[in-house]
Amino acid sequence: MKTLAVGSGKGGVGKSTVTVNLGVALAKMGYRIGLLDADLYGPSIPIMTGLREMSPDTTVDGEGKRKFLPFQKFGLKIISLGFFLDESRSILWRGPMLHGMLQKMVSEVEWGELDLLLVDLPPGTGDVPLSLGQILKIDGAIIVTTPQEVAMVDALKAANAFDQLKIPVIGVVENMAGFQVPETGETYAIFGEGKGEELAHKLGVPLLTSIPLLPAIRRGGDEGIPSAFHFGDEGAGEVFQSLSSKLISNNV
Amino acid sequence: MKTLAVGSGKGGVGKSTVTVNLGVALAKMGYRIGLLDADLYGPSIPIMTGLREMSPDTTVDGEGKRKFLPFQKFGLKIISLGFFLDESRSILWRGPMLHGMLQKMVSEVEWGELDLLLVDLPPGTGDVPLSLGQILKIDGAIIVTTPQEVAMVDALKAANAFDQLKIPVIGVVENMAGFQVPETGETYAIFGEGKGEELAHKLGVPLLTSIPLLPAIRRGGDEGIPSAFHFGDEGAGEVFQSLSSKLISNNV
Repeated sequence: MKTLAVGSGKGGVGKSTVTVNLGVALAKMGYRIGLLDADLYGPSIPIMTGLREMSPDTTVDGEGKRKFLPFQKFGLKIISLGFFLDESRSILWRGPMLHGMLQKMVSEVEWGELDLLLVDLPPGTGDVPLSLGQILKIDGAIIVTTPQEVAMVDALKAANAFDQLKIPVIGVVENMAGFQVPETGETYAIFGEGKGEELAHKLGVPLLTSIPLLPAIRRGGDEGIPSAFHFGDEGAGEVFQSLSSKLISNNV
Repeated sequence: MKTLAVGSGKGGVGKSTVTVNLGVALAKMGYRIGLLDADLYGPSIPIMTGLREMSPDTTVDGEGKRKFLPFQKFGLKIISLGFFLDESRSILWRGPMLHGMLQKMVSEVEWGELDLLLVDLPPGTGDVPLSLGQILKIDGAIIVTTPQEVAMVDALKAANAFDQLKIPVIGVVENMAGFQVPETGETYAIFGEGKGEELAHKLGVPLLTSIPLLPAIRRGGDEGIPSAFHFGDEGAGEVFQSLSSKLISNNV
């Protein structure tokens, strides 16, 4: 099993959206995919997969230890910190608490056989990647950014953090590229343009894809049905199919 | 002097953009405004105010202690953690390190006379608000969100964190509301709609404003000239003028 982290530097660039849709697209290709949502501050995966306010079942392993069973949905095995927290409460995490929680999440889940574990990191370069780097062997990372200067600068920081943790960055995904008006076909670069390409160039890695601002993608997230799961609607499915093919051909 | 924190729960919702433009609009009304950028992971204020890669001057106070002088620009006094960090490097902050750095920032800056100190918090509910709540007396907080469900859920968490820290939430700002196509006037709710109002209702506080997706606001941030500073262009200045008037009339 390989482990691929998805990070961003800046929050709100669509990291969780990319992670869940990439996972669904890879699962459609026949890979056995696990999804670990390690975003302690705002675990969005339960909402995006329609598993809000649900708690995973447990089982007992060969050594008599209790293990959590990931949810199986959209072809993915899914575990989120959100399953263990009250959605409306917030925890003011201090570092050591967080480290313990992550360790629990990683060691007490019965994933079964997986080809790839996708890890949705929190934005920023705080305790979580540092702790996860100690707990898990992470084989590579992709960085999600938007076409904005401020997002690119933070993405460079995230890349630098992965570098310090000796995790190779294997590619960049640009999200929220131009919005195309459905009626006229005109495209508006609301969040700017070109920074995904520039970031990939600076890091010496490929730009894996540039995802347009498709309301269907956002809607899929809010409604709990990842848009990569059903094709057609505004072409969102194809975007993630192409991303997953590119990842595979890059030998991940 | 009053201190107002700007938080968000979810990252990338435009918290720094709202903070800096609100500050500029209040300064234009004649108030003496300080801006403390406490976003350790991705301090965006230096970019948004054209102060990238600059370092503040120092002075010596009456007791012989070295103090940092905030930059004065766009009518604001500005201090950012970004001034003390290398933009391309990232620091994997552990909690205690972070606490020390914040304490330094708060105690070693010579703000002079201020009416209001705006504090741009990092997204999430981690160590920073917890530490700042111990270091500074914060009089109130505003919460920035987008019209998305996933942003609202995180915003509720942020509100809950402020509640635990006994900091009253005084209002909600919705950012990234509809995009209006300049040529046709047609509006597209790319990020959904209505969640700012719903959040304000849940928290029992006013929705201070709903800011449309104006490319001019994003551009102002990337170019280092807050759009509230110059009027006219797509009406961005008016949006923040109305927000600042509403804040004042809400007796902040």
